[in-house]
Amino acid sequence: MYKIVSIPGDGIGPEVVAGALEVLNAVAKKHGFEVEIEEHLFGGASYDVYGSMLTDETLEACKNCDAVLLGAVGGYKWENLPHDKKPEAALLKLRKELGLFANLRPAKVYDALVASSTLKTEVVQGTDFMVFRELTGGIYFGQPRGYDENRGWNTMVYERYEVERIARLAFEYAQKRGNAKVTSIDKANVLEVSQFWRNIVHEVHQDFPEIELVDMYVDNAAMQVVRNPKQFEVIVTGNIFGDILSDISGMITGSLGMLPSASIGSEHALYEPIHGSAPDIAGQNKANPIATIASVAMMFENSFNRPEVAGDIYAAIEGALAAGLRTGDIAAPGEAICSTTEMTAAIVARI
Amino acid sequence: MYKIVSIPGDGIGPEVVAGALEVLNAVAKKHGFEVEIEEHLFGGASYDVYGSMLTDETLEACKNCDAVLLGAVGGYKWENLPHDKKPEAALLKLRKELGLFANLRPAKVYDALVASSTLKTEVVQGTDFMVFRELTGGIYFGQPRGYDENRGWNTMVYERYEVERIARLAFEYAQKRGNAKVTSIDKANVLEVSQFWRNIVHEVHQDFPEIELVDMYVDNAAMQVVRNPKQFEVIVTGNIFGDILSDISGMITGSLGMLPSASIGSEHALYEPIHGSAPDIAGQNKANPIATIASVAMMFENSFNRPEVAGDIYAAIEGALAAGLRTGDIAAPGEAICSTTEMTAAIVARI
Ligand SMILES: CC(C)[C@H](C(=O)O)[C@@H](O)C(=O)O
Ligand SMILES: CC(C)[C@H](C(=O)O)[C@@H](O)C(=O)O
Repeated sequence: MYKIVSIPGDGIGPEVVAGALEVLNAVAKKHGFEVEIEEHLFGGASYDVYGSMLTDETLEACKNCDAVLLGAVGGYKWENLPHDKKPEAALLKLRKELGLFANLRPAKVYDALVASSTLKTEVVQGTDFMVFRELTGGIYFGQPRGYDENRGWNTMVYERYEVERIARLAFEYAQKRGNAKVTSIDKANVLEVSQFWRNIVHEVHQDFPEIELVDMYVDNAAMQVVRNPKQFEVIVTGNIFGDILSDISGMITGSLGMLPSASIGSEHALYEPIHGSAPDIAGQNKANPIATIASVAMMFENSFNRPEVAGDIYAAIEGALAAGLRTGDIAAPGEAICSTTEMTAAIVARI
Repeated sequence: MYKIVSIPGDGIGPEVVAGALEVLNAVAKKHGFEVEIEEHLFGGASYDVYGSMLTDETLEACKNCDAVLLGAVGGYKWENLPHDKKPEAALLKLRKELGLFANLRPAKVYDALVASSTLKTEVVQGTDFMVFRELTGGIYFGQPRGYDENRGWNTMVYERYEVERIARLAFEYAQKRGNAKVTSIDKANVLEVSQFWRNIVHEVHQDFPEIELVDMYVDNAAMQVVRNPKQFEVIVTGNIFGDILSDISGMITGSLGMLPSASIGSEHALYEPIHGSAPDIAGQNKANPIATIASVAMMFENSFNRPEVAGDIYAAIEGALAAGLRTGDIAAPGEAICSTTEMTAAIVARI
């Protein structure tokens, strides 16, 4: 029995989470386990009720479950709040409080959708790598920070244990992937914090002699993702570089609406699609639920160690795509468009 | 009469600078002005003679001329030196000492070469924007910085005057380009230094009410360059974000060997190709001189305010391309390849 906290959130969040929960129930039935789902507010939906994007109650619930499934947060309505009240601040607090130090973002190109990439098919087809972004350190959380009339400042800092644990996680994952190559991305030719990062990654690497480790500067890495994405298997990098690189890596696949993510710590884990709340299409049964459904698959891989369940979900997604189902965001010009609920039903039917 | 310091540097530097100086002499003759060229050592070439990548003599020479033309620095030979002796450290020192606070990098797709981009032709054709990267501030130079056994740290800091002057330069350039749109790129949803950056850019914008200003987060911007580069006209951003974004912007054009750059301050200016020293093809008359030749064109635009001379150079480059001349880096499979000197001669002939 798995206890899952569901946070639909804002915009299209409720629709895509509803789809993902249907799939969750379908695999539970098939594989004979039980799931308990507890729904909580977060983001704008929470602010409108409690005047806070993240209440203690929601935070406690997230700490007392086996995994969190999040839809999306934010929207125009809450954009002009002061910085400390905004969805971003709540998201950062949630990550920090749950200790979610690793953000895993697959960059995977689905054969059926390769044409929707802005990159040429021969460049991008077959791309399938995983980005490990450090999520609770670096310049996002470093002190001192602030600004006044005449200057602004932030601090990029990494502690030994912070680099060690994300590096270890990336190497362990690479091991499971048949000793995949790990590329560590930094700016060690300019930044001392990156020299430190690089030193520690190499220390941890000594425990994984069978894995190839490549160091790459962040400016070059951003280019390489666009030039030849197939060269990557596992990427590991800090918080701000990972923010940028995981987004480019998602973009080149051509289908942001398809990409899941996992944010994991030593005690808690949160799964969410990488797309945002898309307020312009919210409530219209148009959103693509696949990224959220794939996030459930990542939950079974990472939190529950049940790759066979994840495999069923991925296969059902590919089956629905192969059958030609397309939500608006992934339809080629002229292709018929299905709704959120139709896509969900097609995937559930294949479980 | 213009006094120019020429720094061939390492690898292919001497070859491409030689080509650019031929073009410089050709435009001088045509337009009836004189140039005095003084050659100096920098980078590995300097280290091998003096044990230092940047001598006081070279620095003084750069301070006492109208513009510096640089080839490229660095190579395998000097990669294992301690950090403070490396080419990177010398480059940062040169930028800082000359006060080169603005790095201008055009991202321009040549029609004749559009096929060499990894992006689809319809996405990338017609791309033509300019990146203004702040070059002497931000996390590259912020204090405190360092690392020890257990942590590493750097400081991203911007002072009011630093943001003001780069923003003003970008808006003035946008004005000259027929009130082009300016996109300012930051991470103001997380970093205070970016909130400060954004505030100051908007203050400066008040003096340019006719120009459209768009704010964009750096993660989104990196995606947008790959998704739809034609949306950009002028980009202005800080040092580290600019390092990453200008490289992606160059990459999507498909021809890094074609792209020039200008690093300018209130008293000095330096022009250089964005490609590196390419030690593997050095000395073989294979390098593409166009990026360095185009850097001379930028020199006439920015330092000498002679757009008609720059125009002649750009036209000669396009003429040589239209006539089918291709160095190895820009040749399509099966196309005939010309040498550095052949490409140079073809451009000189068209001046
Ligand atoms: C919304 C923002 C704070 C967040 C981040 O920068 O981490 C987002 O870009 C992400 O990648 O999850
Ligand atoms: C070599 C390095 C220090 C430099 C930088 O980061 O500025 C380079 O990447 C550049 O963009 O000129």
